[in-house]
Amino acid sequence: MSATVSPLAPKTFASLPALRGVRMATASAGIKYKNRTDVLMMVFDAPAAVAGVFTKSKCPSAPVDFCRTNLPHGTARAVVVNSGNANAFTGMKGRAATELTAKSAATAVGCGENEIFLASTGVIGEPLDATKFAGVLDQMHADATGDFWFEAAKAIMTTDTYPKVATRTAEIGGVKVTINGIAKGAGMIAPDMATMLSFVVTDAAIDSSVLQSLLSAGVEPSFNSMTVDSDTSTSDTLMLFATGAAATDGQARITSAGDPQLDAFRAVLNDLLKDLAIQVARDGEGATKMLEITVTGAESDAAAKTIALSIANSPLVKTAAAGEDANWGRIVMAVGKAGEMADRDRLAIWFGDVRVAVNGERDPSYSEDAASAVMKKQDIPVKVDIGLGSGKATVWTCDLTKEYVAINGDYRS
Amino acid sequence: MSATVSPLAPKTFASLPALRGVRMATASAGIKYKNRTDVLMMVFDAPAAVAGVFTKSKCPSAPVDFCRTNLPHGTARAVVVNSGNANAFTGMKGRAATELTAKSAATAVGCGENEIFLASTGVIGEPLDATKFAGVLDQMHADATGDFWFEAAKAIMTTDTYPKVATRTAEIGGVKVTINGIAKGAGMIAPDMATMLSFVVTDAAIDSSVLQSLLSAGVEPSFNSMTVDSDTSTSDTLMLFATGAAATDGQARITSAGDPQLDAFRAVLNDLLKDLAIQVARDGEGATKMLEITVTGAESDAAAKTIALSIANSPLVKTAAAGEDANWGRIVMAVGKAGEMADRDRLAIWFGDVRVAVNGERDPSYSEDAASAVMKKQDIPVKVDIGLGSGKATVWTCDLTKEYVAINGDYRS
Repeated sequence: MSATVSPLAPKTFASLPALRGVRMATASAGIKYKNRTDVLMMVFDAPAAVAGVFTKSKCPSAPVDFCRTNLPHGTARAVVVNSGNANAFTGMKGRAATELTAKSAATAVGCGENEIFLASTGVIGEPLDATKFAGVLDQMHADATGDFWFEAAKAIMTTDTYPKVATRTAEIGGVKVTINGIAKGAGMIAPDMATMLSFVVTDAAIDSSVLQSLLSAGVEPSFNSMTVDSDTSTSDTLMLFATGAAATDGQARITSAGDPQLDAFRAVLNDLLKDLAIQVARDGEGATKMLEITVTGAESDAAAKTIALSIANSPLVKTAAAGEDANWGRIVMAVGKAGEMADRDRLAIWFGDVRVAVNGERDPSYSEDAASAVMKKQDIPVKVDIGLGSGKATVWTCDLTKEYVAINGDYRS
Repeated sequence: MSATVSPLAPKTFASLPALRGVRMATASAGIKYKNRTDVLMMVFDAPAAVAGVFTKSKCPSAPVDFCRTNLPHGTARAVVVNSGNANAFTGMKGRAATELTAKSAATAVGCGENEIFLASTGVIGEPLDATKFAGVLDQMHADATGDFWFEAAKAIMTTDTYPKVATRTAEIGGVKVTINGIAKGAGMIAPDMATMLSFVVTDAAIDSSVLQSLLSAGVEPSFNSMTVDSDTSTSDTLMLFATGAAATDGQARITSAGDPQLDAFRAVLNDLLKDLAIQVARDGEGATKMLEITVTGAESDAAAKTIALSIANSPLVKTAAAGEDANWGRIVMAVGKAGEMADRDRLAIWFGDVRVAVNGERDPSYSEDAASAVMKKQDIPVKVDIGLGSGKATVWTCDLTKEYVAINGDYRS
């Protein structure tokens, strides 16, 4: 955890209520350092439905492989998350470590190892000594409590400067259900599920296949639309669990993704995912500015997203933002390099409400002062209209500062 | 020109001989500033064969469009290069400016406007007042001299901290020919000054179609294999001219790219292009380290290059280099995100001669001290073996430092 909180941190944090069917505990297992909280255990009182999306990296961590293997089983009894060691690029030792951790957790909970899910963040390439979990998971299972969300969010932080939490409620068939989510991540964040870690739990009764459908769709305009540095982690994990406790209030289990009773739930779930994703982007390493980049008029939504990400990942756009420089020439550059259809002479660009370029040249009424005033703000909306079609997309990113270089370069691993 | 020369600058510069058939002059046209050298004119005494490769940006500058239009004509009589204004994203005014510049140059030289080639770097989106060229091009044509290569290289510098020059000789059919080249570029788009430019001239007698074939192939393992910040300028231009003066020594004109008499020439041309490209990469904005990244064992050469560029463009790899951190986990991350076939458990990674990872995990004989010693050097070779096939590629990049952020963010445009 950094000593300095990001200037883009939320002013207040949502208060997450206890959620029926799930309890949590943290502990110090001494994975990398002594006497530092480095394990979170999330326990489901009854088998919970489970869905997950993971890094698209071709070199995923051992826990990502482990979760992918267990996911088809469809139910979860516990999640074990550690920091200090990513258990990534650890070969056969890494697989053995996940198996041992799962065995320890399954013994503590009294369930099958295929109902355990794992996530690890920290050093890559260092063997993880999973024997350290054996002593603590039993106690964690005994200690786990429901009113522990904020502590859980803090426990999974690494270079994060603040915990990421969000909560929503919705009704399914007249029964109120709650969704709580936590996330961590500050650097090595980019689409393709570079979200580092996020765990979302609802007390709704929903089949795992439906959950997976909701999650796979919901991740696109949220976590997959934000980028800090274009780098993709080996460990990114976003999981959604449904304890089903709301069934005791009479909520009929949802078994089809097309069920219209799910509409309100889907909307608030997507809103929560976007909330968490933006919180992660706002904690980008060294960030002082938040850019919301909207591309309209592209050939397709996919093309719009490619262009928006080309802008969001451009070091020159991001350093200009850090310098409060209304440098729209760099936006043109980033549109041009995206590789998607673009007609220079139809392009229009806005910073906030200030149109700086139109019809392929500087806006005739361009005001340097007005554009600069937008750049001085903490939140900078950038809009680009490609002028070719109706494809649109919005992505979020932060600026690139000397502090980013310091965080990632001023130390030896 | 920066006050501080890059620590990676060459210790000595090649001395470029005058080359028969081409002369150069520089002048101050007052494009952006008064009394600053801002125009280079390169004049060919007789029509020279010409080839070019240009930015792949979908939003190219007006001079790039102009050159692309003239290229099929196949001969050049003059090149006009200005700094201070990129004439990019300037709409119809930009086209008019290229036409007026070409007309002024053609009048000065006494040739067709389709034998003129143009390049501009500088501010994007600002209309270029091409009337300023009219007064100076006549005089430049009169003053142009052959022994002017180093001055020409200096004249096209913007944020460059040193001029880039290279020269080679070869024999074609027993006749000695010379190739001279100059380049500029430090970031893909520097503060106000856009672009990578390079002009290469030989006195060999070679058809333009053959030149184009040589250049299109030669650019791949050289300029297209180096990256400073992954950003692509709207103005990148690399042109190759052949004055044909060696015909007076009896060199029979080369009319086929497959002509075996071209072998030696092709080899030294490729070597010169690589030399210039590396000089550009070594002048990367804020650079303190040079990374040569070689990927072997990929599915194909193209896959190897994609993986190598994923490593070379990763902010986390580049900041680690700046911090002299032997952080091979970030190399694994960059291989994983490249999207090409990779098997984590066959991967091997070297810093210099020190193998740090093999068979999907840390090398059993890994020495932190040995790896760190490599990272302390100015030139850092990184090798990654994917272990799947025989595809290979080498790319060059520099580190990402606070100075890069300062150069690109610490000012208002």
